[in-house]
Amino acid sequence: MSDKKLKVAIVGASGYTGSELARFLIHHPNVEIKMITSESHTGKPFSDLHPQFLKQLDLPLTSADSIANEGLDVVFLALPHGVSMKFVQQWKDKDFMMVDLSGDFRLSSPVVYTKWYEKDHSFPEGFKKAVYGLPELHKEAIKGCRLAANPGCYPTASILALAPLVKNNVILHDSIIIDAKSGITGAGIKPSNTSHFSNVNENFQAYGLKRHRHTIEIEEQLNSLGGMEITVQFTPHLLPVDRGILATAYATPSSSISEEEVQELYKTFYANDPFIRIKESLPSIKDVRGSNFCDIYPVLDERTNRIIVISVIDNLVKGAAGQAIHNMNLMAELPETSGLLFNPIKP
Amino acid sequence: MSDKKLKVAIVGASGYTGSELARFLIHHPNVEIKMITSESHTGKPFSDLHPQFLKQLDLPLTSADSIANEGLDVVFLALPHGVSMKFVQQWKDKDFMMVDLSGDFRLSSPVVYTKWYEKDHSFPEGFKKAVYGLPELHKEAIKGCRLAANPGCYPTASILALAPLVKNNVILHDSIIIDAKSGITGAGIKPSNTSHFSNVNENFQAYGLKRHRHTIEIEEQLNSLGGMEITVQFTPHLLPVDRGILATAYATPSSSISEEEVQELYKTFYANDPFIRIKESLPSIKDVRGSNFCDIYPVLDERTNRIIVISVIDNLVKGAAGQAIHNMNLMAELPETSGLLFNPIKP
Amino acid sequence: MSDKKLKVAIVGASGYTGSELARFLIHHPNVEIKMITSESHTGKPFSDLHPQFLKQLDLPLTSADSIANEGLDVVFLALPHGVSMKFVQQWKDKDFMMVDLSGDFRLSSPVVYTKWYEKDHSFPEGFKKAVYGLPELHKEAIKGCRLAANPGCYPTASILALAPLVKNNVILHDSIIIDAKSGITGAGIKPSNTSHFSNVNENFQAYGLKRHRHTIEIEEQLNSLGGMEITVQFTPHLLPVDRGILATAYATPSSSISEEEVQELYKTFYANDPFIRIKESLPSIKDVRGSNFCDIYPVLDERTNRIIVISVIDNLVKGAAGQAIHNMNLMAELPETSGLLFNPIKP
Amino acid sequence: MSDKKLKVAIVGASGYTGSELARFLIHHPNVEIKMITSESHTGKPFSDLHPQFLKQLDLPLTSADSIANEGLDVVFLALPHGVSMKFVQQWKDKDFMMVDLSGDFRLSSPVVYTKWYEKDHSFPEGFKKAVYGLPELHKEAIKGCRLAANPGCYPTASILALAPLVKNNVILHDSIIIDAKSGITGAGIKPSNTSHFSNVNENFQAYGLKRHRHTIEIEEQLNSLGGMEITVQFTPHLLPVDRGILATAYATPSSSISEEEVQELYKTFYANDPFIRIKESLPSIKDVRGSNFCDIYPVLDERTNRIIVISVIDNLVKGAAGQAIHNMNLMAELPETSGLLFNPIKP
Repeated sequence: MSDKKLKVAIVGASGYTGSELARFLIHHPNVEIKMITSESHTGKPFSDLHPQFLKQLDLPLTSADSIANEGLDVVFLALPHGVSMKFVQQWKDKDFMMVDLSGDFRLSSPVVYTKWYEKDHSFPEGFKKAVYGLPELHKEAIKGCRLAANPGCYPTASILALAPLVKNNVILHDSIIIDAKSGITGAGIKPSNTSHFSNVNENFQAYGLKRHRHTIEIEEQLNSLGGMEITVQFTPHLLPVDRGILATAYATPSSSISEEEVQELYKTFYANDPFIRIKESLPSIKDVRGSNFCDIYPVLDERTNRIIVISVIDNLVKGAAGQAIHNMNLMAELPETSGLLFNPIKP
Repeated sequence: MSDKKLKVAIVGASGYTGSELARFLIHHPNVEIKMITSESHTGKPFSDLHPQFLKQLDLPLTSADSIANEGLDVVFLALPHGVSMKFVQQWKDKDFMMVDLSGDFRLSSPVVYTKWYEKDHSFPEGFKKAVYGLPELHKEAIKGCRLAANPGCYPTASILALAPLVKNNVILHDSIIIDAKSGITGAGIKPSNTSHFSNVNENFQAYGLKRHRHTIEIEEQLNSLGGMEITVQFTPHLLPVDRGILATAYATPSSSISEEEVQELYKTFYANDPFIRIKESLPSIKDVRGSNFCDIYPVLDERTNRIIVISVIDNLVKGAAGQAIHNMNLMAELPETSGLLFNPIKP
Repeated sequence: MSDKKLKVAIVGASGYTGSELARFLIHHPNVEIKMITSESHTGKPFSDLHPQFLKQLDLPLTSADSIANEGLDVVFLALPHGVSMKFVQQWKDKDFMMVDLSGDFRLSSPVVYTKWYEKDHSFPEGFKKAVYGLPELHKEAIKGCRLAANPGCYPTASILALAPLVKNNVILHDSIIIDAKSGITGAGIKPSNTSHFSNVNENFQAYGLKRHRHTIEIEEQLNSLGGMEITVQFTPHLLPVDRGILATAYATPSSSISEEEVQELYKTFYANDPFIRIKESLPSIKDVRGSNFCDIYPVLDERTNRIIVISVIDNLVKGAAGQAIHNMNLMAELPETSGLLFNPIKP
Repeated sequence: MSDKKLKVAIVGASGYTGSELARFLIHHPNVEIKMITSESHTGKPFSDLHPQFLKQLDLPLTSADSIANEGLDVVFLALPHGVSMKFVQQWKDKDFMMVDLSGDFRLSSPVVYTKWYEKDHSFPEGFKKAVYGLPELHKEAIKGCRLAANPGCYPTASILALAPLVKNNVILHDSIIIDAKSGITGAGIKPSNTSHFSNVNENFQAYGLKRHRHTIEIEEQLNSLGGMEITVQFTPHLLPVDRGILATAYATPSSSISEEEVQELYKTFYANDPFIRIKESLPSIKDVRGSNFCDIYPVLDERTNRIIVISVIDNLVKGAAGQAIHNMNLMAELPETSGLLFNPIKP
């Protein structure tokens, strides 16, 4: 099995998720990068857009139109929200598997999508095919699917921080607060006031209060996992760093529980998940930078009777490209960790 | 009145609060910096320790022992916790006023001090003389005192974020969560693993979970203000920036309230406070950097029925040196804003 | 004299130099900010564009068209290159003095301008009126002028680093290399790939090799000062910081000279310049941040027979807004340092 | 050949070069990490010191004393200058190969060592055995050696920037200026004023003017390569980043040469060197971050008749751990790039 080489395409070369996919796939033992697409840079070498790949990945960029002729096994869609759905629709009967890194198929239905994304969905049938690609929750479903909806970065960190509590039904359903902090790459490669160096550097602020789209993604997954109506308070903040998300999650126990019991829940829940590391000390975003790990640290404050869980991921890896490859590994029946065991880069 | 020149000493030259005091006092229209002390650098010009002051403040450093001979009006103690109390005791009968920037006299009693600072207090009587120097809460008491205990940086941002809610008794007493984030200068000028560039840069982490000393300082002030037993969940985090604290505070309303009503509470409560700016958009730490302002943004999330308040300060100014000078202004019957109206430095 | 209040306008509110001018002018004892202009934000308060000024400078922005009606004494043009010249031409017969912060009148002639800026100049006569506003070189000429061409940021740091050597004719005319490094604010407030956080943060690169426009500005000033044909190798680099320029200048002595003699040249040359600090140890950009100081450290390497001079400035202050106010002070016969003696902000 | 597994030890676990060696060696197809030593942390798992390795490299640390019993093939000495020489002496007759990452055997003789390092060398005979481990210059000698002296970080960037010019004898021997800039990890993991976050962040400064030890290392290598007496002006600066060196090198051609000819020299000289990338645009340190690449960009300024060469490396990889593994690959007759072709991490 491990000798097979999947023929892979990356659709959308210019963004950070495109270059991160390349960074991992280029060394993946079971992958051949067959094509990388860009509509605006067709013909240029990939390394022109991302000079760090010079001499390593100089593949000329092509249009996504020619994708049918390549005998592909897997297509990664590294495209903006709203663009991805068109390609998924167009390719719905093709032979290749798809991992969609956009938000287009993460929610439960077109109705919920329209409510939170404030626009119509052009391919409502896609929701039936798509599996939410969080391997720690949906491993078996992912293995059998042809379209994985890769989770959002904040939802990845948030759901992983809370899943053991929700699954085991040990917290009050309206007590969850997730105070999350992310590096700027979450806002994408396109220049804007938001990403101007002097607006980010030496600065820190909250954004998207009360209405960030990832709120509903987190709620839907937790509701489904816990079998109850959970309301989540989700507040994202912008860190002056390139990469990394740290989520500080708060929840009130529904009945008496000890810190040891809480920690045991986490160890048990994630016992078979190679990228989850339950920590015994406070995690930091640099401990996972560049890697597919999610470090989690759950504690109980007896004084206030509140559980606090801190989780950290690299938003571009476990929160995007790495998790997408994890999904591909599952869909293609490869070892889960294949091509993904690079160590965090620190300092 | 405004022609008088207070003779002022800064005790403790080597740290950040010492140099920030100098940065403001040097331009204060009613202040003459008479002496700056350092036991380990006696004789050196102040600008040797802080080269940014070259040609502006080359005053030779002296020992604190000679402080009695200078005819001083005000002494700022910019010293570590545990050291300050010895000097306060030693100088308790002197003619000068004291503003203590350490944590030695911020709490209500030696008993509480010992519980949270985990050591005995060598001058328990000091607690009776000290007034908690948060001008927005205790303006009149500060005016009449001789010893102001300058608040901690996190408590300043946290209490100011919550005071109008607590004072007006509109939130549940056990619902407060303060998720706070601070720049590294809060950890002081002394090199350590914590402050090593490569441990801070491109990094982010929580610390002091469940047991940070500022928790009790916040609780005591809110309890006193609200006349009830409030328990606060306080979680500090370390930002990869020099300066700035952003506190994201969450609380559940005790009865129905609208966002407009919440915001009105803030405007009313702080109507006479020149350094508080109630914002109508999200604040950022760079909006107050280098200044004595505290920007506050309160909202209500109707979906979750939760109030979220975001406050930002410069931890070295409103959270330390600036507030200390504000206290001096009040104690010496000078205009509140005297010497403190410098604008934030941005970018 | 010191009681007079100059009526001042800032033309161009939206950029960094506009907000830095405001930061200093708001506290200048002899200035009243009468108007701030912006063609694209007319009617908005200045603090809408720069929220750090909330409650301090909420003046509504106006169009530059109405400038004639305000009885102004001084107009600062904080505009892009090429735009400024049109206003200077339009206002050439007005009563107010002008300080132009753009590059439009810094060079010796329209011919040189066109060669290095690669476009025609629309107001060639302006060159005759304009005085190059580097006070340390042209104090008397500035005092008598009505139009000061405020120097570029790199030229300020570079010329000040080399002037004593050139003036005293102690170096070989073709031996000068200036390896300069600047913070990103030099590239302006407008979002671009250059200023995207993730392209600057944790990064460093050279740019403008061989052809940066500041090269000719430096050469012309040094030639004029030394009375000879000097060729300068100028290489700018982009630092991952907001503010600050450090120039490392190299030159070969034309005859034997000692380090002490070199340093003496600097002390003598700048004896009457309040913003120049000749250092006896290595300077850093944070030692001058936010201030109008230029720190200079000259040494001689006997082993290689080469003089090395390091100079540091804040590009937005001594390299722009602060120097512009210094020019205004001279033109209006105010004390040189009026409104400019704020201390560097560090850390 | 490629199936063999070298038994490898890392001596000195606590520093950055130790953890970087581990980051690469853990994935090296021909390496088994047999032991990692630390005298002060014996018994602890390696991941206690470097938590990013949790679950990936939890090997207990041992004392270097037991090194003889492990049947080792290769020992990496990741130790401070002055400490390394003692171990090299002690193990001089052992069967394993050694790569010394300290400066102890980089220079030509104990006399030169003592002059620039200002202390005696305790193992002078070592200089005869050691080969300077810069593969691009000494590939064949490294293949045959048992002790490689891994080059300094600045010398790696500097020598690679200049070698083609010196080897081809096209520049004046006293015209070389290297203005170099490095991230803070070059100063090591130990907390100090130099590495305090607030002294580095938003700051920039030169250091070690006229006397930095890497000067002689660069000069000796260039002299040996060019067969003449070359004097180098070397000025290091400290960048507010974790990783990366950019060297801007200046030299005057000894006779007429075109830019194309200059660039051709570089392409020819490095034609067989897999980690050298001759660029056609300006390189940046983030283009090589985390990787073993050295990007080089040579130009000629016809106006000033000067060659400018810009080179970038990751100081911890090509400037330390990566180059050390490259040396191991050569010494052990493995493919040069084995285990080293990871892509730069950007952003």
